[in-house]
Amino acid sequence: MVSASGSVPTPDPSHPAAPAPPAPQTAPVPAERLRKVAAGILHALGAPAPYADQTAALLVEADLRGVDSHGTHLLGLYASRIRAGHLHPAAAPRVVRDGGATLLLDGGLGLGQVAGLEAVRLLVDRTRRHGVAAVAVREGTHLGALAAYTERAARAGVVCLCFQNGPTLVPPHGGLTPLFSTNPLSYAVPAHEEPPVVYDVATTAVAGNKLLLARKRGDATIPDGWANDTRGRPTTDPAAASVDHLRWFGGHKGFGLAVLVELLAGALTGSCFGATEDTASPAHGRERVAKGFVFLGLDPERFLPGGGFAARVDTLVREIRASEPADGVDRVLVPGQLEHERRAVREAEGIPLPDALREEINQYAAELGAPGLD
Amino acid sequence: MVSASGSVPTPDPSHPAAPAPPAPQTAPVPAERLRKVAAGILHALGAPAPYADQTAALLVEADLRGVDSHGTHLLGLYASRIRAGHLHPAAAPRVVRDGGATLLLDGGLGLGQVAGLEAVRLLVDRTRRHGVAAVAVREGTHLGALAAYTERAARAGVVCLCFQNGPTLVPPHGGLTPLFSTNPLSYAVPAHEEPPVVYDVATTAVAGNKLLLARKRGDATIPDGWANDTRGRPTTDPAAASVDHLRWFGGHKGFGLAVLVELLAGALTGSCFGATEDTASPAHGRERVAKGFVFLGLDPERFLPGGGFAARVDTLVREIRASEPADGVDRVLVPGQLEHERRAVREAEGIPLPDALREEINQYAAELGAPGLD
Repeated sequence: MVSASGSVPTPDPSHPAAPAPPAPQTAPVPAERLRKVAAGILHALGAPAPYADQTAALLVEADLRGVDSHGTHLLGLYASRIRAGHLHPAAAPRVVRDGGATLLLDGGLGLGQVAGLEAVRLLVDRTRRHGVAAVAVREGTHLGALAAYTERAARAGVVCLCFQNGPTLVPPHGGLTPLFSTNPLSYAVPAHEEPPVVYDVATTAVAGNKLLLARKRGDATIPDGWANDTRGRPTTDPAAASVDHLRWFGGHKGFGLAVLVELLAGALTGSCFGATEDTASPAHGRERVAKGFVFLGLDPERFLPGGGFAARVDTLVREIRASEPADGVDRVLVPGQLEHERRAVREAEGIPLPDALREEINQYAAELGAPGLD
Repeated sequence: MVSASGSVPTPDPSHPAAPAPPAPQTAPVPAERLRKVAAGILHALGAPAPYADQTAALLVEADLRGVDSHGTHLLGLYASRIRAGHLHPAAAPRVVRDGGATLLLDGGLGLGQVAGLEAVRLLVDRTRRHGVAAVAVREGTHLGALAAYTERAARAGVVCLCFQNGPTLVPPHGGLTPLFSTNPLSYAVPAHEEPPVVYDVATTAVAGNKLLLARKRGDATIPDGWANDTRGRPTTDPAAASVDHLRWFGGHKGFGLAVLVELLAGALTGSCFGATEDTASPAHGRERVAKGFVFLGLDPERFLPGGGFAARVDTLVREIRASEPADGVDRVLVPGQLEHERRAVREAEGIPLPDALREEINQYAAELGAPGLD
């Protein structure tokens, strides 16, 4: 069975070795309940209520879309960073430089979601005014899934691209020295009757996660192109493949995109990039929490006024879906389609939270005197 | 030996099945001589002298960079299209809509290079004025290598992205219905002391070209991921693999980028996209000559004034090159590095033109009463 997904979860670049949550065993949790509990925990950890609400909403949105690696699973990571003083949950993003169609913000090492949502709000406003805009953010932290931001812009009628860098985990193509994160990029494009086209991928072939799971399952081989061994040699042996030597998707072509992400999200924002540290945070190298990100926006009305673009997006989406499927493929998918479908199901039926995650959330809540799930 | 190239030639999306020129057998041709002869041929075919000069310069630039598939090899394609009335060599690009930071041009089915260079000239000007800009072009034709345009913007200090669509050759990921071209994308980023970082790739894994050559050589297998069979099933058998079923680089991740290219270059410009025709040209479907393209520009001075960005690009370029190479890899490369190196060699030593191409060029020149190479 060929996977025809046009969009996959962005692996968490902060801890690619974290194992995926086990399969759920108890009743699904309504999204609204999970949002309230997550917000309560974040608030108890020091986030002002509006920031706690924003962050919780985005984490639960990832759970709704089936991108569990970027959902409430991340609460533990955020809690440990807040407690270690590496993430400042009350910090507000501020504008460093305003050029009209261009903006540079400083996230102050606050919650990435707060800086990310403010950046997208400004992006949509400036794109409407100028037709095209760019918002760059330095001293951001973990953003969660990039699709949450680009999709918001698309739902406001703006074509949006997003690039984000991070700690030094992955070597360049053909090299051994860690310089890059999994360097995700995302885009979203508004449609008319169809949901927006939403793309959100790491520029590595897979997350370290997937390799560790293959080992745990005792798989005899992993697909070609996932990871190298510790000497940078391609391998399909799960035991020899190294989570510190993930490969770029499509080899040098994916690597070239990772370089673009690093140059825009890291260098252009004045954030950390490659081995260069430029942050107030004391966490460095592969422990680096400071991330840079850049949003680009385009207003299609400046090119095809009267909604002509969104109608054309509908047309292409339908042409793709109507393609005759290859042998062994059920249906041909548009980027983001699976996540849209999963969201509809989980909004109706609740989120199938793994027992271990449910317990972890309840434990944080109890420790902090916040309401739990049960 | 692992190939560590960070940038590869964009395969010609107009005829992915064209075999590569054979190895050269005669003395290299000085670039200046080749430019004059190519310009003479284009002028004799009806291009005004400045358009002939511009187009010849870009073709020879691709030959200099070693991207032979996009060099003077294309003269034959252009000649046949001009003679068939599908390409109007005297047509001038015109501005359809001017929003300041955004521009829509119509290429009038003229030489792609003429519209492309005008688009980049406008992009650089508008990016300097607004900090960010977008120039979209409809009714363009074959552009040659996209790197020629993005690199020009980068040498003028502008971060530049370019997307281009084309005829319906390649099915969506998991499908069988041809809807896309090889949908190339390119970026270039200005550096300070280093040459700009230049990336230019097709979103398909390889050109049909490479598959045909593997067959000719009698290779037992082709790498996984190059192409499917005619039922869309992955194959490593060169005989079963179909040039009409090329795979996207990195599977669904590359496909998602091809969708972005189609939506920006095709739909946003008001050009042809997917199965939808929107052109004055009578050449349709896989014979389509009309292409759309979009350039995005960013002025790094709006984010890091005083040349701070270019200095940081130098730093990352040097960090990548200084990475310890993987076993079996000679050196770790930055996107565009090989092409910069080849250009320096060929500017000094001349361009090693294959005999068959030399003869073809001389034949066109003789037919048209223009000066030949000998």
